[in-house]
Amino acid sequence: MMQAVLETVRQGSPRVHCICNTAAANDVANVLLAVGAKPILAQAEEEAAEVARACSAVSLNCGTPDESRFRAMRKAAEAARAAGRPVVLDPVGAGASAWRLARVSTLLRAAHPQVIHCNYSECRALLGERTAFSGVDSVAASVEERAAAAQELSRQTGAAVLLSGPEDLAAHAGRLAKIAGGSRMMGLVTGSGCMLSALLGAFCAAEPDPFRAAVAASSFWKACAQEAWERSGQAGGGPGTLHACLFDAAWKIREWRETIEFF
Amino acid sequence: MMQAVLETVRQGSPRVHCICNTAAANDVANVLLAVGAKPILAQAEEEAAEVARACSAVSLNCGTPDESRFRAMRKAAEAARAAGRPVVLDPVGAGASAWRLARVSTLLRAAHPQVIHCNYSECRALLGERTAFSGVDSVAASVEERAAAAQELSRQTGAAVLLSGPEDLAAHAGRLAKIAGGSRMMGLVTGSGCMLSALLGAFCAAEPDPFRAAVAASSFWKACAQEAWERSGQAGGGPGTLHACLFDAAWKIREWRETIEFF
Amino acid sequence: MMQAVLETVRQGSPRVHCICNTAAANDVANVLLAVGAKPILAQAEEEAAEVARACSAVSLNCGTPDESRFRAMRKAAEAARAAGRPVVLDPVGAGASAWRLARVSTLLRAAHPQVIHCNYSECRALLGERTAFSGVDSVAASVEERAAAAQELSRQTGAAVLLSGPEDLAAHAGRLAKIAGGSRMMGLVTGSGCMLSALLGAFCAAEPDPFRAAVAASSFWKACAQEAWERSGQAGGGPGTLHACLFDAAWKIREWRETIEFF
Repeated sequence: MMQAVLETVRQGSPRVHCICNTAAANDVANVLLAVGAKPILAQAEEEAAEVARACSAVSLNCGTPDESRFRAMRKAAEAARAAGRPVVLDPVGAGASAWRLARVSTLLRAAHPQVIHCNYSECRALLGERTAFSGVDSVAASVEERAAAAQELSRQTGAAVLLSGPEDLAAHAGRLAKIAGGSRMMGLVTGSGCMLSALLGAFCAAEPDPFRAAVAASSFWKACAQEAWERSGQAGGGPGTLHACLFDAAWKIREWRETIEFF
Repeated sequence: MMQAVLETVRQGSPRVHCICNTAAANDVANVLLAVGAKPILAQAEEEAAEVARACSAVSLNCGTPDESRFRAMRKAAEAARAAGRPVVLDPVGAGASAWRLARVSTLLRAAHPQVIHCNYSECRALLGERTAFSGVDSVAASVEERAAAAQELSRQTGAAVLLSGPEDLAAHAGRLAKIAGGSRMMGLVTGSGCMLSALLGAFCAAEPDPFRAAVAASSFWKACAQEAWERSGQAGGGPGTLHACLFDAAWKIREWRETIEFF
Repeated sequence: MMQAVLETVRQGSPRVHCICNTAAANDVANVLLAVGAKPILAQAEEEAAEVARACSAVSLNCGTPDESRFRAMRKAAEAARAAGRPVVLDPVGAGASAWRLARVSTLLRAAHPQVIHCNYSECRALLGERTAFSGVDSVAASVEERAAAAQELSRQTGAAVLLSGPEDLAAHAGRLAKIAGGSRMMGLVTGSGCMLSALLGAFCAAEPDPFRAAVAASSFWKACAQEAWERSGQAGGGPGTLHACLFDAAWKIREWRETIEFF
């Protein structure tokens, strides 16, 4: 079902404007190229709106931010919205500092994203439930707690929420899906979540329903993780080899076994 | 013929000052190391001139720019020029926005580069023929159209122009060369053009004729692409494996079959 | 002996705040993940202190700096110090420009690092012995000269100094160690020193004696280099394959043959 969304991406080659942290910029561009999309990484506030208008989707990533990057993200989001283009928001490390939480929260209100992609810590930070240190890593929580948080953030923002974790959860407008599979090794590849946020931009350009786009992208990315880890693990590799194989998998995979449950 | 330029690079270990976009910075440094050159990535405007003066060449890359980076690029170019060092300019995404086009055009006039490395879209943007969206990806055009654009940009600027595409075209002072080979897969590796721009800096440090330096670097990089893709493709890989193998190839290759036509 | 420090890192999963150059940011995060640590790359001056306080160690890397990054590094260092957390300083390219040397020297005085990780050129620049161009690459020097420089910098700053080179030298409070092994190929992987600086943060979080932490991290990293190069070299690879295999090695290695001499 969801595989048709990937096919639409490959055929349409959507241009995706990514404003992204410095650590993941290279990976984000490469994963978009691997699925046939065209990344544009412009991040200057002077050109953010014009570039966003010329793209099919915008993906905003709040890692390694600064004041200028936040301004550029806001301009890109507002331009995309005015042009009817989807916006994806990845509130990386939303709770890492009071400053970041304030800036991400402001951006969230201004951006009206179609999809928010975050982990449980970030989700709770955006819901105002700040923990001692809600950094970039997720804390342990049951599926029920995680689903409730995703649903609440979706309710408050109107966005589809894709909550990453041992299994991904997608929530939107009363719908809930659990996407299993993937590889635990992905936690050892920095930017693996940022890459999914970039893919979400491409998938939203191909599929107007943000819930379906989020489920499809999550399911595809888990298939990539599994394929990449099988190939690198068999060759005696570890996270470095897995990292390289991710792009191979994203380029090759057309069909995969979907492990999605809808509730 | 052209292989002697690479040999001079390997023996001379030229220091190359690269001011580069954030996505390609790691790759740019690694490809220079692979051919025996020494990358310096300083990008602060406070030190750009001093670093440029201490280097054998300067390579300026306009991807993911901001106002400060443009100022640093200008200072580096002016210092290099005053010291008689070659300057390479890669006007990444020159037409992506009005702001970027204005800044790149100003930089082009101030920098007096020996070599401009661009694709057809960027070339047309610099020639004032702005298309609807002249982003970072090239548009379809015949060899004749591309050659005419490269020659015109070379005529207007005095620089050797290396125009990337299905085959690279080099134009300078009435000379024209077509460099074939490589791998279509390179379009799936972000920064593959940026890496060539860095190599152009090293090759210009080794060869005073910018046309010959451009042809040699292009030909070498196509040999690297072909070797890397043969090796990764045989192992069942894709663009991620190709990416890693590029540095292996750049480190290993000393001789290659040149597929250059001069007109 | 030293292997127990790595084991403590793996079990404790220390959070390490890295303020790092743009070229090595991805690698730095990945190498920390590979040893079980948690990287946080926040670099905005607005949040540097708060993030540093929430981490177990801070690693400051002066590559590709700008004024704002220097301010963030200073705030992170002061916050870490006030909270009793170790600070590692990598004065990348300290002598690359008068501006950088001034900024790094000021940072060094303010940061009171537990460990300084540098090459011989950078060490001499910090000692006020500026050479014609003391860029990021080291110059030739005897072991005795290098040991004397490391000991002097340690004496002046109170920090343990880890001096990289053909063999690493660690100096602190009258103690001196030489760590051999590794692979000469590491000079072809940009950021290999930056990765060690990040690991030093994790090791300092696990071992209160900065001299022991430095020796352990250096010895571990040399084992990683050797293992990675053996694996990639056997597969016919070069520096690109080596690069990927470094993370595999850092993830796998638990025990290794230490080649440490204490003086």
